[in-house]
Amino acid sequence: MDLNADLGEGFGAWRLGDDDALLDVVTSANVACGFHAGDPVTMRRVCAAAASKGVAVGAQVGYRDLAGFGRRRIEYAFDELRDDVLYQIGALDAFCRVAGTRVRYVKPHGALYNTAAIDEAQAAAVVAAVVDYDRGLPVLCPPGSVLGQLATGAGLRAVAEGFADRGYLESGALVPRSAPGALVSSPDEVAARAVSMAVDSAVRTVDGTGLHLPVESICVHGDTPGAVALARGVRAALERVGVRLSPFVEVPDLRGL
Amino acid sequence: MDLNADLGEGFGAWRLGDDDALLDVVTSANVACGFHAGDPVTMRRVCAAAASKGVAVGAQVGYRDLAGFGRRRIEYAFDELRDDVLYQIGALDAFCRVAGTRVRYVKPHGALYNTAAIDEAQAAAVVAAVVDYDRGLPVLCPPGSVLGQLATGAGLRAVAEGFADRGYLESGALVPRSAPGALVSSPDEVAARAVSMAVDSAVRTVDGTGLHLPVESICVHGDTPGAVALARGVRAALERVGVRLSPFVEVPDLRGL
Amino acid sequence: MDLNADLGEGFGAWRLGDDDALLDVVTSANVACGFHAGDPVTMRRVCAAAASKGVAVGAQVGYRDLAGFGRRRIEYAFDELRDDVLYQIGALDAFCRVAGTRVRYVKPHGALYNTAAIDEAQAAAVVAAVVDYDRGLPVLCPPGSVLGQLATGAGLRAVAEGFADRGYLESGALVPRSAPGALVSSPDEVAARAVSMAVDSAVRTVDGTGLHLPVESICVHGDTPGAVALARGVRAALERVGVRLSPFVEVPDLRGL
Amino acid sequence: MDLNADLGEGFGAWRLGDDDALLDVVTSANVACGFHAGDPVTMRRVCAAAASKGVAVGAQVGYRDLAGFGRRRIEYAFDELRDDVLYQIGALDAFCRVAGTRVRYVKPHGALYNTAAIDEAQAAAVVAAVVDYDRGLPVLCPPGSVLGQLATGAGLRAVAEGFADRGYLESGALVPRSAPGALVSSPDEVAARAVSMAVDSAVRTVDGTGLHLPVESICVHGDTPGAVALARGVRAALERVGVRLSPFVEVPDLRGL
Repeated sequence: MDLNADLGEGFGAWRLGDDDALLDVVTSANVACGFHAGDPVTMRRVCAAAASKGVAVGAQVGYRDLAGFGRRRIEYAFDELRDDVLYQIGALDAFCRVAGTRVRYVKPHGALYNTAAIDEAQAAAVVAAVVDYDRGLPVLCPPGSVLGQLATGAGLRAVAEGFADRGYLESGALVPRSAPGALVSSPDEVAARAVSMAVDSAVRTVDGTGLHLPVESICVHGDTPGAVALARGVRAALERVGVRLSPFVEVPDLRGL
Repeated sequence: MDLNADLGEGFGAWRLGDDDALLDVVTSANVACGFHAGDPVTMRRVCAAAASKGVAVGAQVGYRDLAGFGRRRIEYAFDELRDDVLYQIGALDAFCRVAGTRVRYVKPHGALYNTAAIDEAQAAAVVAAVVDYDRGLPVLCPPGSVLGQLATGAGLRAVAEGFADRGYLESGALVPRSAPGALVSSPDEVAARAVSMAVDSAVRTVDGTGLHLPVESICVHGDTPGAVALARGVRAALERVGVRLSPFVEVPDLRGL
Repeated sequence: MDLNADLGEGFGAWRLGDDDALLDVVTSANVACGFHAGDPVTMRRVCAAAASKGVAVGAQVGYRDLAGFGRRRIEYAFDELRDDVLYQIGALDAFCRVAGTRVRYVKPHGALYNTAAIDEAQAAAVVAAVVDYDRGLPVLCPPGSVLGQLATGAGLRAVAEGFADRGYLESGALVPRSAPGALVSSPDEVAARAVSMAVDSAVRTVDGTGLHLPVESICVHGDTPGAVALARGVRAALERVGVRLSPFVEVPDLRGL
Repeated sequence: MDLNADLGEGFGAWRLGDDDALLDVVTSANVACGFHAGDPVTMRRVCAAAASKGVAVGAQVGYRDLAGFGRRRIEYAFDELRDDVLYQIGALDAFCRVAGTRVRYVKPHGALYNTAAIDEAQAAAVVAAVVDYDRGLPVLCPPGSVLGQLATGAGLRAVAEGFADRGYLESGALVPRSAPGALVSSPDEVAARAVSMAVDSAVRTVDGTGLHLPVESICVHGDTPGAVALARGVRAALERVGVRLSPFVEVPDLRGL
């Protein structure tokens, strides 16, 4: 099982989350690429740290919207979105090469993630960018999403991820943030849900029924108070029940070099 | 002899210069990378057109300053400048790969070009970025510049370029834009100066003396009225006297593929 | 009858449209405020020129999206949109004051115009910003739009405008740009439609029926080749039939001062 | 005596400093205007809170450089800098009006502050913007600075400020950040220096001699850990010795309205 988190989401003088602490918890780092967050100095630093710790680096691509942190849906034209995504992957890959590694996967951020999960045009633009850059790069996305389907259809590997700290509906969709049960805040419960996803490929829905949820990665968050502790709790719980944690892609071990 | 020009310097709805016309004149295209100009859709288009015409693509890296078009000197910290440059090279290279080619060289733009020509810290940052990305990439710069010296010292190839439409001082420096003789506007004279640079490695200074100016590339401009005609005149004059025009780097011929 | 056009839509080194020519044609200038286009130097210049010619200055407020020129719908939160609009009005008003005038009205740009015409949340955010800044400022919008209704409901004056160079459906909506009849390109026909709007408060729909279209302003475009000529034709045709052209708001005459 | 601090220096999802805590300490708030930091929602919130607490709002104008937080010197053309400053003042004033107050003064930020203190061209551009907007607005600047001299020469009020947590040279300049004694970190010493400035118009230099430093305002910082406590200590020490704290401009008391 893989653990992923968003990293490098500061910009210039502004910091967000504790990159260093998270890099000791996760096996895959979704690194912001400069459009919704992430400046080049931070990108270099996070890529180097990730590489040195054997953490896989993914391109966390977002809308061009620093002011909105990529959380506002934007109705992009197909070629504009495809090329904005491609630009970001290329930029991040430069810092990965410096660190002796490469971009290993792509994960859309924020509103692009949510939109590409259900919108064919935006999903197709993301897929086209990945196909253009490197057909070997998996796309991290929700199970059953339009993005995952289009990625698979284009010959890419779609890697499904679950959210241990979010409530699920019976449809497999997340409980909307405005509805009760959207967030799971008890550290023990978050850890237990992660174990359930990893061991049983299942999670209990907000209505109490069991949901089959086959995921290859579990996403933990790092940008809220207590988030790092929550992430550590998830990792410890998974290790306690014997789940082996490693990236969903092969990453050469640079430790000790 | 190589002919280079700045291309892809629009941004979104805004256009600047006639990219298509220039691509039929030059052998090397300095493509804007998004920080002073250049949006991803334009980058893709120009890279594809350049590749199809056998024109070498260079990363025209600039300060992060869309509002100032990269023409205002910014006092960057070393790592910020190095990483801004690296980011831009990586981003452009993504579009080059899609076009079946690669970034072949790096040329700083505007105030970064002028600053790196004389300022050790900024020159070193540009050189460090190129070394980080690919030691095989030449750097296009003024003859005798600090940038050229540091590039050579770091094991990079420094490619000197001349400006056929700009006046030169005996020191080899350009006549400042505010001084008489800064600009050569007569198409015949511009063409004659290009021939002189190419055939005799020399150009007449604003004071009338001969200046030894060994250059491997001649820069023509494309962003002013009449610029394309001027560039065509330079090319025609060079071809008339038998100067063979080709990029200063090897570019596989994709024409006819 | 008022004639309005978008002005000041360049940014830094990039120009768009012929501001000076248009200022001799229109009676109201929608001046870009820096978020989708428009830099401060241009804003000052256009405000000064407009003031000197008795042309009313309106705040052409847009999404924060230079790369998309404000033409991509963005799903803003209410307070973010309200405050982005307010920020732009305040910024433009500074340049108006320098020019001895004031912002006289507000007109949303591009995707914000289209969205606020039909979307209550975005329309309400625009209205809230205008109410916050100055309840005396009219809002320029399509006849029958949600924006117009909410503006009126909030005690603002809604000024309806028509497009002489766009096709209309029987519903009063514009023919979508992708459908036949979206654009009217014949200068004579454009001028005739403007006259019909001004004299008869009507325009022929794309299906040939008559549409009641009571407007206080006619929008002409300036950012395409031939646009200025088209705008001049509209003005000349209106004057020929005796339509008096003046801003829909009172503007003190600074000419001759 | 006035106490001022930089506020509203977040941007979108990013926060910097504790605005609310500082508003209970200072008498003047330098509010970021969106070019180096500060988004419109934050600007509205800070202006409203400042107004409700009787804190004077100043326009903290900066270079257009979010990535560099306005800390990198940019070689602006005169009109570009003047108009960027004017734009920011106007934008902030819109939020002040909503809050029932007005922009009461102008303070350049970061590299613009440092540059305008010694550079005539940039100082003149700042002064020109303030003159254009409202000759009644004071400019907050170092004692003896070029900016202060030009402001005074243009008929503006120049308000000198001191830094209780920074070391001073005998020349009256600050000890450069790279030199020993640049920062004073002991809370007691910072408070004592503030008292010395307020009561004796003097401060001890890094070399131990007394420096005459007549200031009308003392700047405290809010963007570092412990900064708020330091600021509170300064205020408490000043109040302890009977220094009356109030803005250097008149601000109508909105408390209780």
